[in-house]
Amino acid sequence: MINSTANRQVRRVANLAKKARARREEDLYVAEGIRICRELEPEKTEIIYVTEGFLQEESHKELLKKFRWEQVSDPVMKIMADTQTPQGILALVKQQHYTLDEILNQPQTANLILLETIQDPGNLGTILRAGEGAGITGVIMDESTADLYNPKVIRSAMGSASRVPFVYVDSLKEACMQIKERGIRLFAAYLKGSRPYDMEKFTEPCGFMIGNEAKGLTKETLSLADVRIHIPMEGQVESLNAAMAASVLMFEAARQRRRMGT
Amino acid sequence: MINSTANRQVRRVANLAKKARARREEDLYVAEGIRICRELEPEKTEIIYVTEGFLQEESHKELLKKFRWEQVSDPVMKIMADTQTPQGILALVKQQHYTLDEILNQPQTANLILLETIQDPGNLGTILRAGEGAGITGVIMDESTADLYNPKVIRSAMGSASRVPFVYVDSLKEACMQIKERGIRLFAAYLKGSRPYDMEKFTEPCGFMIGNEAKGLTKETLSLADVRIHIPMEGQVESLNAAMAASVLMFEAARQRRRMGT
Repeated sequence: MINSTANRQVRRVANLAKKARARREEDLYVAEGIRICRELEPEKTEIIYVTEGFLQEESHKELLKKFRWEQVSDPVMKIMADTQTPQGILALVKQQHYTLDEILNQPQTANLILLETIQDPGNLGTILRAGEGAGITGVIMDESTADLYNPKVIRSAMGSASRVPFVYVDSLKEACMQIKERGIRLFAAYLKGSRPYDMEKFTEPCGFMIGNEAKGLTKETLSLADVRIHIPMEGQVESLNAAMAASVLMFEAARQRRRMGT
Repeated sequence: MINSTANRQVRRVANLAKKARARREEDLYVAEGIRICRELEPEKTEIIYVTEGFLQEESHKELLKKFRWEQVSDPVMKIMADTQTPQGILALVKQQHYTLDEILNQPQTANLILLETIQDPGNLGTILRAGEGAGITGVIMDESTADLYNPKVIRSAMGSASRVPFVYVDSLKEACMQIKERGIRLFAAYLKGSRPYDMEKFTEPCGFMIGNEAKGLTKETLSLADVRIHIPMEGQVESLNAAMAASVLMFEAARQRRRMGT
């Protein structure tokens, strides 16, 4: 039982929750909340911290059986956790690593998302979750995109952050060229794109390029797209937010691919 | 120029930002930020408050010409505003009111959203914005759904909150019956719905029923649906969040309706 907020483990966890650098150095991330922790694999989980309140429920104790765990006081949990009202369970989990080659190793079924400087962790998390649901095969991001292991991303992605293959690349341009060399067609989401998204065919290997929340895709990235598509809008709405636009595109691809299968 | 944080107007605005009841009594709401204020209509806007910093820009002064406005100090703006870092402009705007009859008065083109106890203001705002973009004709909500004039809803809806017709109803059941009497088909978003959403036809008058973030639709509301639909999911994702699910459905309806038109 850890009671003291000055305990070294407490500082360590709080640091991992706050700092991308600490996460990189330790190759770990913090997963908070019962829903995410239910999906954890024991071999990827270093330790789980729980409060007394959490242990009150029988089903909760059951959950912990396969894991190394330790009890902490409520004030300690409050410091460890990134949320205002922690749920009483928090885990340190090993990061996963993929290479661009691994993500592209089955180009014939590719269904990719390319993100350029998506800065809002909530958006990244939502894209991961909706993306898994829509059956995407990988996420490729530039280094200016939010850290996938930021606790806010983990929370909004739920378990998807540990299941959808992803990679950060130094040069999105370089990655796009490799993608195109493998016969994967790139569709850029672009407000002034000449093609309505629903007139395109996404049943062949493809990738969707989504740009920064405020600025969209850079000219250079845009120039690497095979097709520039837009989502037609009614009323006075100019654009959807990045996560919403990505989801509409991904679920249209899923819809077309299901139709192909039937 | 208002300098004193004890000024009556300051307390009034802060109250309007915080309390649904104060908003109802005064029939006003608070719109914050340059983007939303650009879209305001002078006849619906009681007053705009701006900071000195905001007035520095020529284009900002231009914007104010058609409105009654008053300058406030930065500390005053901080108290008036609902955000941590106010943008220096905030307006008091008249609420809009629609009746269920008005929303249903063109049943032949109906494209409705019915919300049951959507509690997250961000979700409601997102549904309004995506809904306007997808061309919905009205939003019908039960009294337990978040207040549409909550500043968080207004921010995430952008200008859509003042353009999409909406109504809160005492009884969603009663409203559903009126809707169905007019020949509008109701589709319930339901995890265990027997029909995949993309096998249904949304080109006829229709409405989508979306339930609470955690509990979904109540049995009673669900029983009023003509069809229970689900969004097929890949991977281990059970469901999308309420706003995302609503958007996928609304944009599928928009896609089908565009196709009909061409």
